[in-house]
Amino acid sequence: MQKTIALGPGLLIGGDNFVVMAGPCAVETRELLTAVADAVLAAGAGVLRGGAFKPRTSPKSFQGLGEPGLLLLEEASRRTGLPVVTEVMDPRDVELVAAHAGILQVGSRNMQNFPLLREVGKQRRPVLLKRGAAATIDELLHAADYILQEGNEQVILCERGVRGFDPSTRYLLDLAAVPVLKQRTSLPILVDPSHGTGESSLVPPMAKAAIAAGADGLLIEVHAQPEIALSDGKQALRPADFAQLMTEVRRLLPLFGRRLCRGAAAVAPASDRPGSGSLPTTLDDEVIAP
Amino acid sequence: MQKTIALGPGLLIGGDNFVVMAGPCAVETRELLTAVADAVLAAGAGVLRGGAFKPRTSPKSFQGLGEPGLLLLEEASRRTGLPVVTEVMDPRDVELVAAHAGILQVGSRNMQNFPLLREVGKQRRPVLLKRGAAATIDELLHAADYILQEGNEQVILCERGVRGFDPSTRYLLDLAAVPVLKQRTSLPILVDPSHGTGESSLVPPMAKAAIAAGADGLLIEVHAQPEIALSDGKQALRPADFAQLMTEVRRLLPLFGRRLCRGAAAVAPASDRPGSGSLPTTLDDEVIAP
Amino acid sequence: MQKTIALGPGLLIGGDNFVVMAGPCAVETRELLTAVADAVLAAGAGVLRGGAFKPRTSPKSFQGLGEPGLLLLEEASRRTGLPVVTEVMDPRDVELVAAHAGILQVGSRNMQNFPLLREVGKQRRPVLLKRGAAATIDELLHAADYILQEGNEQVILCERGVRGFDPSTRYLLDLAAVPVLKQRTSLPILVDPSHGTGESSLVPPMAKAAIAAGADGLLIEVHAQPEIALSDGKQALRPADFAQLMTEVRRLLPLFGRRLCRGAAAVAPASDRPGSGSLPTTLDDEVIAP
Amino acid sequence: MQKTIALGPGLLIGGDNFVVMAGPCAVETRELLTAVADAVLAAGAGVLRGGAFKPRTSPKSFQGLGEPGLLLLEEASRRTGLPVVTEVMDPRDVELVAAHAGILQVGSRNMQNFPLLREVGKQRRPVLLKRGAAATIDELLHAADYILQEGNEQVILCERGVRGFDPSTRYLLDLAAVPVLKQRTSLPILVDPSHGTGESSLVPPMAKAAIAAGADGLLIEVHAQPEIALSDGKQALRPADFAQLMTEVRRLLPLFGRRLCRGAAAVAPASDRPGSGSLPTTLDDEVIAP
Repeated sequence: MQKTIALGPGLLIGGDNFVVMAGPCAVETRELLTAVADAVLAAGAGVLRGGAFKPRTSPKSFQGLGEPGLLLLEEASRRTGLPVVTEVMDPRDVELVAAHAGILQVGSRNMQNFPLLREVGKQRRPVLLKRGAAATIDELLHAADYILQEGNEQVILCERGVRGFDPSTRYLLDLAAVPVLKQRTSLPILVDPSHGTGESSLVPPMAKAAIAAGADGLLIEVHAQPEIALSDGKQALRPADFAQLMTEVRRLLPLFGRRLCRGAAAVAPASDRPGSGSLPTTLDDEVIAP
Repeated sequence: MQKTIALGPGLLIGGDNFVVMAGPCAVETRELLTAVADAVLAAGAGVLRGGAFKPRTSPKSFQGLGEPGLLLLEEASRRTGLPVVTEVMDPRDVELVAAHAGILQVGSRNMQNFPLLREVGKQRRPVLLKRGAAATIDELLHAADYILQEGNEQVILCERGVRGFDPSTRYLLDLAAVPVLKQRTSLPILVDPSHGTGESSLVPPMAKAAIAAGADGLLIEVHAQPEIALSDGKQALRPADFAQLMTEVRRLLPLFGRRLCRGAAAVAPASDRPGSGSLPTTLDDEVIAP
Repeated sequence: MQKTIALGPGLLIGGDNFVVMAGPCAVETRELLTAVADAVLAAGAGVLRGGAFKPRTSPKSFQGLGEPGLLLLEEASRRTGLPVVTEVMDPRDVELVAAHAGILQVGSRNMQNFPLLREVGKQRRPVLLKRGAAATIDELLHAADYILQEGNEQVILCERGVRGFDPSTRYLLDLAAVPVLKQRTSLPILVDPSHGTGESSLVPPMAKAAIAAGADGLLIEVHAQPEIALSDGKQALRPADFAQLMTEVRRLLPLFGRRLCRGAAAVAPASDRPGSGSLPTTLDDEVIAP
Repeated sequence: MQKTIALGPGLLIGGDNFVVMAGPCAVETRELLTAVADAVLAAGAGVLRGGAFKPRTSPKSFQGLGEPGLLLLEEASRRTGLPVVTEVMDPRDVELVAAHAGILQVGSRNMQNFPLLREVGKQRRPVLLKRGAAATIDELLHAADYILQEGNEQVILCERGVRGFDPSTRYLLDLAAVPVLKQRTSLPILVDPSHGTGESSLVPPMAKAAIAAGADGLLIEVHAQPEIALSDGKQALRPADFAQLMTEVRRLLPLFGRRLCRGAAAVAPASDRPGSGSLPTTLDDEVIAP
């Protein structure tokens, strides 16, 4: 029996609830974050993603805004009613990040960072655990065990591509991992087609393929101006393309026995929140979890 | 503009036409082949697959029936009206195989067997070219060039999994190859989730994911009694499971602008063919290409 | 011009100095550690390796002794005169580990644990940085940049095998990484044939191959009783086999313009250290760096 | 007990006999081939390599001279006394190639071209079987079984790199395959560091590493003018660099219980062969097999 995890008021993942988490790779400025947050809310996302602490291959690349980035995310969360998922890389930052974000992300490079896994395991927050680029499915499950063992059972797994040999894509998205994981665990499983392909034009087909493979949700990068993004712009969708994808996602989900789940705050009339006048109301194929 | 290839009377692949090729890994006996052929016809397959010449890792494994296998395939094709796709491994066998089968398959291990590619390029038969387990997408396209250059433009590409590091699946099915190929070639693209996963329980989710990723067709192994199959039984669907999958495939295709294409012979009233009394007629979402 | 790094009194790595680091995968008991430490000292190792904090795939596996393990390592270091290299996994443990060990190891799973890299970069201790199982050579160099940028220039790189597809070996030891790294960096390069193969019988040939490929040193697991080891016993050499390998290493090094470097303490008459009466003196082909 | 295979008069591979096969990737012109053949003979090669039929990724690349290339190879063989190894790709060409060349090569792309394996298995010529880029060691041994089963026991295996994810090298040379193969088969094992790295500067270190890993011989590309080579020039050594490498090889072999083996014809006074006046005579560490 599959596990259902509450991500926010009325926002469940697992079972027949499908959740889309979307937003920029990195938090850059208030303006950019606001624009993207409003756009993904309007398009139907249930969670806002965005990186304040960024793991970058080179120390010379933009490393994220750090704590100010967390504050911007929290502000965007209040504005939109969307819970925030953001990466934590350092066990010493876990409490700080947990104070500002509803969902903690452990990134691919840290899948076997065991002190970090233990630390997020001590929090009472859902954890999004991304598969390492060279990790087997069993190693991913063992990594999840480190979190579960500390008493935190709210673990969401995420397939985001493994190392492949073909430079056509940044990583090799292993969608078969989804049904394999379904056979081995009751934890919900997300797919990240943005990192998994590294190329925005490949995100919509692979997002839909992920649904067909049985995923419980998607993690998608959206940027208002991908061409000036400080991190991974090549793989980010523009808001209009994300909205188009979400239209297709809504049409697809019922065929797989799923409903798009959005939180209560996100879909409620929101006259007291600035700029939210045009928020969509719940569609027939959507659900606000009780 | 995408290429459309005729596989038989009223049977097109490409454009909005989606074709399912199904059958046993290897031709073993007339009884088993007949049972499977009838079953895949009834379920909606457009092409019968089956191996007479089998490439096996060890010379001690069953190597296929050879020419008698081709005759059984031809008989099953006449019985069902389904064209046959079967593998040819030896350039010296190309004419023989082409005399008995409507579609020539070049297997994964032979993707860069250039004399074989040239020989099938000289035939006037569609060729199903499977990606090698260590081949990049560009190498697959260059292999197709060997066939095209000989004047045979009826090339169908097939993603069937590349080498991965996780023993959870036999190969790592690279579904992102489908949209990448769509950007680089107009040739139709099949996906083989049977070899691509090596495990029958993973075939239905990955078949549906392949549709969502944009594939033009599927290649699926079906065996009446997988537990006694002489080759790759672990990855074969039973007829009932295949029929169930096809029901889902029919429901899915319209959402992706596709129609299941079956040949004229396969869906015509077939009172003169033994055992075909219960053949389904064309459904609304299917097409017999003009 | 290649960098030379001092690992202890009279103990240099780099240039023509070749250093062998050896010891058990994990520190288990004082008896076992003492036996191995004495044995690797006698055979010619220059550094004692041993894990107090062990990164284990599953939380149910032995996780190392932690701080008591560090104390045992320090004791073994005093006993033998060999500096100790041991892994640190948690940025919060870096000062603790640095207080007990001469050389800090960042393991393969933590190659891109950037907070940890920055923390060891703040120490004034040599750091052994192991390549991640899915890391390119450039990613390894960028990881080293995180340490260098903090002001710690004593970085030693270590090739220990990447993910491969053949279960014949645990990892795929990428020895070509050694000459590639030599072209791109002046940092010394170690090879770990124990993790790189996962099988003790393959360690001697690959250790010798590493020398021939141009490595500056070796990292080798030795266990007095591999069959009862709590971690990775399958890949550990017995002391007698290690001694035999060291004999061959000594013979090989001069052909590659290298000399086995051992520290002053390790090779000095050691009457004040228990059990060290039979320590070998420096051989002609060895060096105590000035 | 390891198998010894005779490659020509007085030329054995296996046991303590080490053989270097060298020459251009492709036969291009008489002048270039002669220059390289004389150079590799002078430097100590035991076999001349060169491709007449070239497997090329794209049909637009130079495909080799075909039969005229075989005649040039035969002429170079008579001139130098070196037996020739050359690739055969088509089962229909096996007799032709066997009529002109002493050793038949089955290339990496054809490792599982079973009709070709069977055909070379019917010849009474040594066969050099190269490992496929995605082949496990067991699959390589099974491929060899196809040849052995036809009655041809003169099979030499060759590791030439598998697909890796790091673009630093063309392939990932799996040197651990050498000791693994030694444990599983008595067949001799060659290493090809030219294809295995794709970069001439990496060939010498990896050639020496191959010796240290236990290889029975090397396959090395040498071209008089790599910058104008029609195929794979980037990985070819110049004659002077090859001669330098051979000097080091000669020094290394005795440490591994090996002797460089060259054929009787190659090292005999050769006044009747044009241009061979300066041929070296046998050195102390070399052997002409009885």
